[in-house]
Amino acid sequence: MASSDLKESAANNPGLHTTPDEATKDYIMQQTMYRIKDPKVSLDFYSRVLGMSLLKRVDVPELKFTLYFMGYEDVSKAPSDPYGRTVWTFGRAATIELTHNWGTESDPEFKGYHTGNSEPRGFGHIGITVDDVNKACERFERLGVEFVKKLDAGKMKGIAFIKDPDGYWIEIFDLKTIGDVISRCS
Amino acid sequence: MASSDLKESAANNPGLHTTPDEATKDYIMQQTMYRIKDPKVSLDFYSRVLGMSLLKRVDVPELKFTLYFMGYEDVSKAPSDPYGRTVWTFGRAATIELTHNWGTESDPEFKGYHTGNSEPRGFGHIGITVDDVNKACERFERLGVEFVKKLDAGKMKGIAFIKDPDGYWIEIFDLKTIGDVISRCS
Repeated sequence: MASSDLKESAANNPGLHTTPDEATKDYIMQQTMYRIKDPKVSLDFYSRVLGMSLLKRVDVPELKFTLYFMGYEDVSKAPSDPYGRTVWTFGRAATIELTHNWGTESDPEFKGYHTGNSEPRGFGHIGITVDDVNKACERFERLGVEFVKKLDAGKMKGIAFIKDPDGYWIEIFDLKTIGDVISRCS
Repeated sequence: MASSDLKESAANNPGLHTTPDEATKDYIMQQTMYRIKDPKVSLDFYSRVLGMSLLKRVDVPELKFTLYFMGYEDVSKAPSDPYGRTVWTFGRAATIELTHNWGTESDPEFKGYHTGNSEPRGFGHIGITVDDVNKACERFERLGVEFVKKLDAGKMKGIAFIKDPDGYWIEIFDLKTIGDVISRCS
């Protein structure tokens, strides 16, 4: 097929530039930041349930917050000195940056964070590719994870949405079935 | 230094599990989704200004939305058939999924999306590692990109925040200077 027939071609997508500026050639999509109420609970979820590692922790006493960079990386390969570990972390793609503003975990007045999926909307979710979406969801159920949408529910059967401890949505899919899921709905 | 002295050790981070469950070993942090008002404007920004490619476009007529998966990938290596291209895309880490609910781009009543950085807060930003943060910011200024925070402003000098067309924040840093930036504030 001619390249202009591709759904992703510039001809079909006004605004799209298909030759990236040379100035951007080393750019990395490095982090997605959202705020969390309680690091103890979120670290447990992202490491034990989702299998991520803590790549880097940054405490900023002057501004009373701590950043936890989580990701799918082998931290045994990371430098152990703080400076080297920072540079190593910011050179990894696809990390999650969890921001903890000190005190929210024990503040009875704290109302929780906004997921972006009710008004006012904006951010929607992160998404994790798993090896087997059925097995992954069975495991999440065993672990007591809360679901927004189970695999068989709704219009887009074959993908699931779970919630992290703050209620943020996490989409779950696998490469064996996602092709059919998308073909069916599009 | 002993591993328990590491700031990132389990001993220093209640809740953290440092041995990922075998069930999660093939997991990929694949996508970060947020909603956009006008794909023509956002495709221009993410491709021309940030240098991303359109990995996959998914139109869902029944639900009246289109998804644009953007990322730093060589799309000349992507399959050209729609099914193969879906599987290829969902196998890439660190993509941005821009969701366009049809009609917002021309709806005078549409108030825009919420960035998460004013009340109610939640999501904060994405972050891009660039080769040279000074050159990158000079280029963004030349291109008329709006800044939330310039390199020299505020407490964390050496990192910048720019805005995408919907106002979402994008942090900009480089590996030559981030080690010093983090050392200074933490």
